[in-house]
Amino acid sequence: MEKISKNKIKFLRSLRLKKNRDKECVFLVEGEKMVLEALQLSRQIVREVYLEKGQSIPEIENFEAVFELTSLEASQISGFKTPNKCLALLEYPAVKITNKDFTLVLDQIQDPGNLGTIIRLADWFGVDDIVCSTGTADCFNPKVIQASMGSILRTKISYLDLENYLESDERPVFGALLNGENVYQTKLPKSAILIMGNEGNGISPEIEKLVEQKILIPKIGHAESLNVATAAGILLSEFFRG
Amino acid sequence: MEKISKNKIKFLRSLRLKKNRDKECVFLVEGEKMVLEALQLSRQIVREVYLEKGQSIPEIENFEAVFELTSLEASQISGFKTPNKCLALLEYPAVKITNKDFTLVLDQIQDPGNLGTIIRLADWFGVDDIVCSTGTADCFNPKVIQASMGSILRTKISYLDLENYLESDERPVFGALLNGENVYQTKLPKSAILIMGNEGNGISPEIEKLVEQKILIPKIGHAESLNVATAAGILLSEFFRG
Repeated sequence: MEKISKNKIKFLRSLRLKKNRDKECVFLVEGEKMVLEALQLSRQIVREVYLEKGQSIPEIENFEAVFELTSLEASQISGFKTPNKCLALLEYPAVKITNKDFTLVLDQIQDPGNLGTIIRLADWFGVDDIVCSTGTADCFNPKVIQASMGSILRTKISYLDLENYLESDERPVFGALLNGENVYQTKLPKSAILIMGNEGNGISPEIEKLVEQKILIPKIGHAESLNVATAAGILLSEFFRG
Repeated sequence: MEKISKNKIKFLRSLRLKKNRDKECVFLVEGEKMVLEALQLSRQIVREVYLEKGQSIPEIENFEAVFELTSLEASQISGFKTPNKCLALLEYPAVKITNKDFTLVLDQIQDPGNLGTIIRLADWFGVDDIVCSTGTADCFNPKVIQASMGSILRTKISYLDLENYLESDERPVFGALLNGENVYQTKLPKSAILIMGNEGNGISPEIEKLVEQKILIPKIGHAESLNVATAAGILLSEFFRG
């Protein structure tokens, strides 16, 4: 295995910032499990793999571009306090949204942990298409990737102008809004768009205008609101509970 | 307003650790909203309030024990990067669980963010009683309090030996388990106990033995698992959807 160069470490470390990821359309994933999965997925191009000295993972060692690094070097690259012993450089996947069945739309979700958790939820419920407003957190942010627990590799995430997107789609548009009707009493079709809004402000006014059915999880107790990822989980469950 | 002393700052800072909170049975809450709510709740004893110089909040200034502090001093006390301008020292509430209707049981939840989110969810669905295994994260951890968004003040949380607790209760015991039956096809009574397990390992074997009905959120897609807080949200929603 070739040793990793100082320049490469510097480059990989620079990928913590979106502008640097966007320049080359690449991002970093961490951990043996996610690296192995990326190597198996046909839609995911793995450019390089980095493996800590002393680790033995046959599927990874046999890959054409593996570099060896020390644990210090791993910690210089990793976005986390406990760096992984195995990392990989992936290309942005080519995303083609199908615009059929169910699409989850995210309007200005800011917290990377929330975004990652929502991606994981979508993947659990078999929702392939996630469409984000351009102001939503970047899905290749290391914290999003971590919170998604690998689901980032299995879902199709695109960043679009939501107004254009919603206006050109014919499926019914549902939105989670505090002035919505009780979701438990709403008929929810299998083919639909569901919009979840920003953590503090909810769905933005210009997008709310395009919501055809406002839905709400009725409050029984006293909490002022629900976390957007837990709300997304409950609403997805309602759409898919069959 | 009396100025805060160096010793008090040191003491308040020490409350980041559970052992120091437990010594005096006190904890710190941050932010005007939560401090105001604590002052209004009859069950919550507020020992002292700390207000940044230049802040004017009549309800707080009129409290009998308010101390003034600088923004530097606030940052020395606060558990967060962006310290709050208003904090309060609260006594542990006297918790008396009712053991009727619905109780949420947490078995070894480790992540403070997950615990806080679950407390907020319970509060949303009107679940007053939360019973935690003694190995669950401490509910007065600053990160739990923050993630609970004030719901920590409105729910009754106790730490008990779960085996004893479950054995002495007559309500049906439900548990979220991967070998459970489809929750959407399970009859869920209003009076019940629901157990959610540890993030990585689920419900521990000795507690699983006491579960009478294992339930599962069926997977449609590919994610390996769900985050415990989002799973708790979906299951609580199923119990309370009416």
